[in-house]
Amino acid sequence: MSLFDTEAYTCLSVQEVYELSFKVLTAAGLAEDQATSVAKVITAGERDECRSHGLYRLPGCVQTIQSGKLNKDAKPDIKDVTPALLKADAKFGYSVLAFDQAVDALAAKAKQNGIAALAINNCFHFSALWPEIEALTQRGVAALAMTPSHAWVAPAGGKRGLLGTNPMAFGWPRPGPNPYVFDFATSAIARGDLALHDIAGKPIPEGWGVDKDGNPTTVAREALDGAMLTFGGHKGSALSTMIELMAGPLIGDLTSLQSMAFDDNQKLAPMHGELVLAFDPGLLGGGDLETQSARAEQLFAAFADQGARLPSQRRFEARQRSLADGVRVPQSLYDRITALDL
Amino acid sequence: MSLFDTEAYTCLSVQEVYELSFKVLTAAGLAEDQATSVAKVITAGERDECRSHGLYRLPGCVQTIQSGKLNKDAKPDIKDVTPALLKADAKFGYSVLAFDQAVDALAAKAKQNGIAALAINNCFHFSALWPEIEALTQRGVAALAMTPSHAWVAPAGGKRGLLGTNPMAFGWPRPGPNPYVFDFATSAIARGDLALHDIAGKPIPEGWGVDKDGNPTTVAREALDGAMLTFGGHKGSALSTMIELMAGPLIGDLTSLQSMAFDDNQKLAPMHGELVLAFDPGLLGGGDLETQSARAEQLFAAFADQGARLPSQRRFEARQRSLADGVRVPQSLYDRITALDL
Repeated sequence: MSLFDTEAYTCLSVQEVYELSFKVLTAAGLAEDQATSVAKVITAGERDECRSHGLYRLPGCVQTIQSGKLNKDAKPDIKDVTPALLKADAKFGYSVLAFDQAVDALAAKAKQNGIAALAINNCFHFSALWPEIEALTQRGVAALAMTPSHAWVAPAGGKRGLLGTNPMAFGWPRPGPNPYVFDFATSAIARGDLALHDIAGKPIPEGWGVDKDGNPTTVAREALDGAMLTFGGHKGSALSTMIELMAGPLIGDLTSLQSMAFDDNQKLAPMHGELVLAFDPGLLGGGDLETQSARAEQLFAAFADQGARLPSQRRFEARQRSLADGVRVPQSLYDRITALDL
Repeated sequence: MSLFDTEAYTCLSVQEVYELSFKVLTAAGLAEDQATSVAKVITAGERDECRSHGLYRLPGCVQTIQSGKLNKDAKPDIKDVTPALLKADAKFGYSVLAFDQAVDALAAKAKQNGIAALAINNCFHFSALWPEIEALTQRGVAALAMTPSHAWVAPAGGKRGLLGTNPMAFGWPRPGPNPYVFDFATSAIARGDLALHDIAGKPIPEGWGVDKDGNPTTVAREALDGAMLTFGGHKGSALSTMIELMAGPLIGDLTSLQSMAFDDNQKLAPMHGELVLAFDPGLLGGGDLETQSARAEQLFAAFADQGARLPSQRRFEARQRSLADGVRVPQSLYDRITALDL
C-alpha cells in the first residue's frame, strides 16, 4: 500500500469513479445496461479500497469488450424454473448484469421457500463476489456464492494447474448497515500477487506454488510456469473441487480447464458459470428471528472480545472514508485509463 | 495404524459389527429405531476403517444414552415447510434417525425444485457426515452438510475457544458405486489427535493451537488448555464461522459455545443442529446430464493423471476389504465394549 502513499494521485469522489468507469465502458462499445452493472462493481471495489477489483480492472474490461468474444449487447434471459430455482443465461455478457436483474427474484424465492438458487450461465466474470453477497444480505437473506476461474491451481498431491482460483463468498444479514461477509479465493494467494513477487524478484513462501515438475518452489517465476496451490492443503483442495463441481458441471457450465480453453490465451475475463444460493433465516429457523439474530450477534461480539477481527471490517472502514473524502487513484493508473484508445 | 498391526485383535464381519453395536445400544436403553440408525453409522465407520467413527464410539454413545440428557425414545417430528424445505425436530434424540427418516423426502424435493434443505434441530450428533452425504448421492443428487460442535477452536487472530471443529462434507454422484465425497473438520486437526500427542509427549506442529494466553504453542497440553486453531488461517476461520452461522442461528439452533454450555462438562456428544442441502444436477444444469457428468469425470480423471488422489479413495478401498474379509477390532476395544455395564 506504500505505493499509494508515495506516488502521485488523483482524488475522485465515489460518484466520479462510477462516471469514469461508465464512460470508458460505453466508449469501448459496451451497452448501457451492461456498463451500468460493471461500473457499479468497479466503483464498489475502489470505494472499499479493494483496489485489485477497482479501477485497476478497467483496462482489462476494455480488452475483454474489444475481444469479439464478449457479447456487448447481451440481454440476459432469466428463467423461473421452479419455486426455488432461477436460471440466468447471461448470453456471453457480464455476470453482474444477469445478477442485478435476478437478485430481487432470488431473494423473494428464498423468503418464500427458505432456500433458493440462482445459476448464471455463459457469463464473463471479473468481479469480486462480495458486492452480490451484500445485495442479498441487504434484502434480509443469508447468501453463498461461488465461481470457477482458470486452471492455474494444482489439487493437493498434484503438480499441474487443474482447479481455478475458485472464490467463495458468504454473507449473513446483521442489524445496522454492515453484514457479516467474507470473500476469498481458494488458491493460497491471488495470481496477481505471484506476478508482483516475480517482478520484484522476491521469494514466495512455501505452499504458494510448485514448479513445472510439481516440486515445491519459493521462486515466483517457477510457480507461474508451474502451478499455484490451494490454501489449507488437502482441505482447501477439496473445497476448491466442490466449487469447481457446483459452479461448473452441476449448473451445466464449464470447468476452469474448459474456461481456459475457451479463452485461448487471450487473457480475457474468464467465461463460465456462477452459482448463488440464498437462505431465509425466518423459514429455516422456524420463526424466532430475534433469538436467531441475538445468537449470531453474541458470536460476533465474542470475536471482538478476544481481539479477533471479522472479515470485511477493513473494507467497511475504507467505505466510510471513501464516501466522506473520496478515493485516491494513482496518477499512473488514472493516466492509463484516460489514455485508452476507445 | 501400527497399533492395529501389533496388537491382539478380534475379527468380525461387517454384519457382526452392526449386531454388536445394536445390542450394546439397545441394552443401554436406546429405542430400537434410534439404535438402528446409530448402529448403521458406527458400522459404516468401522467398515471404511474410519476407526475414530467406528466401534470406538460405542462407549461414548452409552455414556450419552445414560446421561439423562438424550431422549432415548425420541420420535423425530419432520415438517414439510415449503416445496424446498424440511425441518426435522430430533427431540433430543440422535441426528441420524431424523436424517434417515427425512432423506427420501429431501432427495425428492431437490429433484422437484433443483435445490432443497433439511434443517435438523435439537439433535445429539457424534457421527461423521459422509454416510449422510453418500445416502444422498446414491439418490442421484449432490449434497452439502455441516454442523457446529463445541467451542474449542479460536478464530483467526483470537486466543480462546469460540468456534466448533465445525465439519463440512460434500458429495457428487458418479457413475459406478463410489461418489466424489469429502468430509473434513475445519479445525487444523481433530481434538483426539491433540490428546494423543499429549499422552505420547510428542510436540505438535505450529498452527494446531495456542496456549491460554493466545500464544502459538507446540505443546499439546498447552493447546488443550488453550485453544485449537482452524485449518487454513483466516480463510479456514471464515469457513468455520459460516458453518457456525448456517448450522446454528440460521436454522434456529445453538452455536458451539451454547452447545458446550448445554453439555455442562459432561463430555457427551454435542447437542445442536445440522444443515443438509441437496442439489439436483438435472434441474440446475438444464437437462444435458450426460455432458455434465462427462465434465465432472474429466475433472476426476485429470486428478489421477497428475498423481493426485480423490478424497475418500482410501475409505472406498477399505470398504472393499472389509466387506470381503471382515474387520479387525483391537482386542482391548472389543473387551472394553463387551465389559460395558449395561
